[in-house]
Amino acid sequence: MTEPSVFLNRVIRELSRLPGVGKKSAARIAFHLLRQSGSQVQDLVHSIIDLKENILTCTVCSGISDSHICSICSDPVRDRSTLCLVEGARDLLTIEATGEFKGLYHVISGLISPLDGIGPADLNLKSLIERLGREKFGEVIIALNPTIEGDATTLYLAGLMEPFNINVTRIAHGLPVGSDMEYVDSATIAKSIEGRVKV
Amino acid sequence: MTEPSVFLNRVIRELSRLPGVGKKSAARIAFHLLRQSGSQVQDLVHSIIDLKENILTCTVCSGISDSHICSICSDPVRDRSTLCLVEGARDLLTIEATGEFKGLYHVISGLISPLDGIGPADLNLKSLIERLGREKFGEVIIALNPTIEGDATTLYLAGLMEPFNINVTRIAHGLPVGSDMEYVDSATIAKSIEGRVKV
Repeated sequence: MTEPSVFLNRVIRELSRLPGVGKKSAARIAFHLLRQSGSQVQDLVHSIIDLKENILTCTVCSGISDSHICSICSDPVRDRSTLCLVEGARDLLTIEATGEFKGLYHVISGLISPLDGIGPADLNLKSLIERLGREKFGEVIIALNPTIEGDATTLYLAGLMEPFNINVTRIAHGLPVGSDMEYVDSATIAKSIEGRVKV
Repeated sequence: MTEPSVFLNRVIRELSRLPGVGKKSAARIAFHLLRQSGSQVQDLVHSIIDLKENILTCTVCSGISDSHICSICSDPVRDRSTLCLVEGARDLLTIEATGEFKGLYHVISGLISPLDGIGPADLNLKSLIERLGREKFGEVIIALNPTIEGDATTLYLAGLMEPFNINVTRIAHGLPVGSDMEYVDSATIAKSIEGRVKV
């Protein structure tokens, strides 16, 4: 087997490192890029470079942002009495895409997982506690994946927030247990927000 | 729905233009890239830029190449008496990956498709005819997809090459290895009976 192009091999190898992209998909993408105009490929390349160079973490909610305070935290129209706790910035976007939730978010940056050596101290909880003391929330909705780690973290968070005398809820387990929020359709996620129950 | 990052949206939009990448896969790839180191992302970006800037078309076989004559056409070890005709550079790589074929290739750059307004004049056949007159091939294997367009093009090519007095063959159409006859379409089974070979 002769490899007619080192450049093609390299791009296929790089593309197949991306999640969900196998060797055949990578080859398909590489040949697609070869057929595209230079400016179309430049658009893709620049979008990736800009992503890496310009994205910041919101200093309030720890979500991804283009500025020091994200557009959700700085939006005057959002309901400032409701806070939604999410594992990561991606779950924030997934919930936001349903259009169901009008409050604010806080990214806790992980889940408690003793088996992986991740304890409460490894999560972004200090800024949450400070925020709960500073801002007046009537309700905190815990929106974590319905897994062992998610449930354990939910219980821990409920205990942590008890002194603040806030109505703590969690999203309904309309989500199939063991699934990943990222792959569930928006309608199901919207239902789970609508059907949240008191912890 | 608020979009917290213009940069993230843009990269998701660009990535979802790639074949086989939907909006959710694009988001997954974007967050993966955010977690990667700067140099890992640079490797990906540079591999794409290099692909666009450096890949050439082999002047002999019209396959992709890093130089004016590709590594297959210039390889002294290849069998120069057998030529394999393929629709595109990707099929060349697919056949090459099997390690089964040791001859040379010629990319005809498309298939005859009257419905799409593609006739013989739109294919890369002038260079094929010149090559058949210049190089001495004992056999030409036509390796096109078993579709209406592929079959029509195979018949056309066989007629075109008749004056050269070369042994013209086409790859076998039949049951894929490992398949179950029960689930294979009747057209394929009909082909496999028609193309039966002596055991």
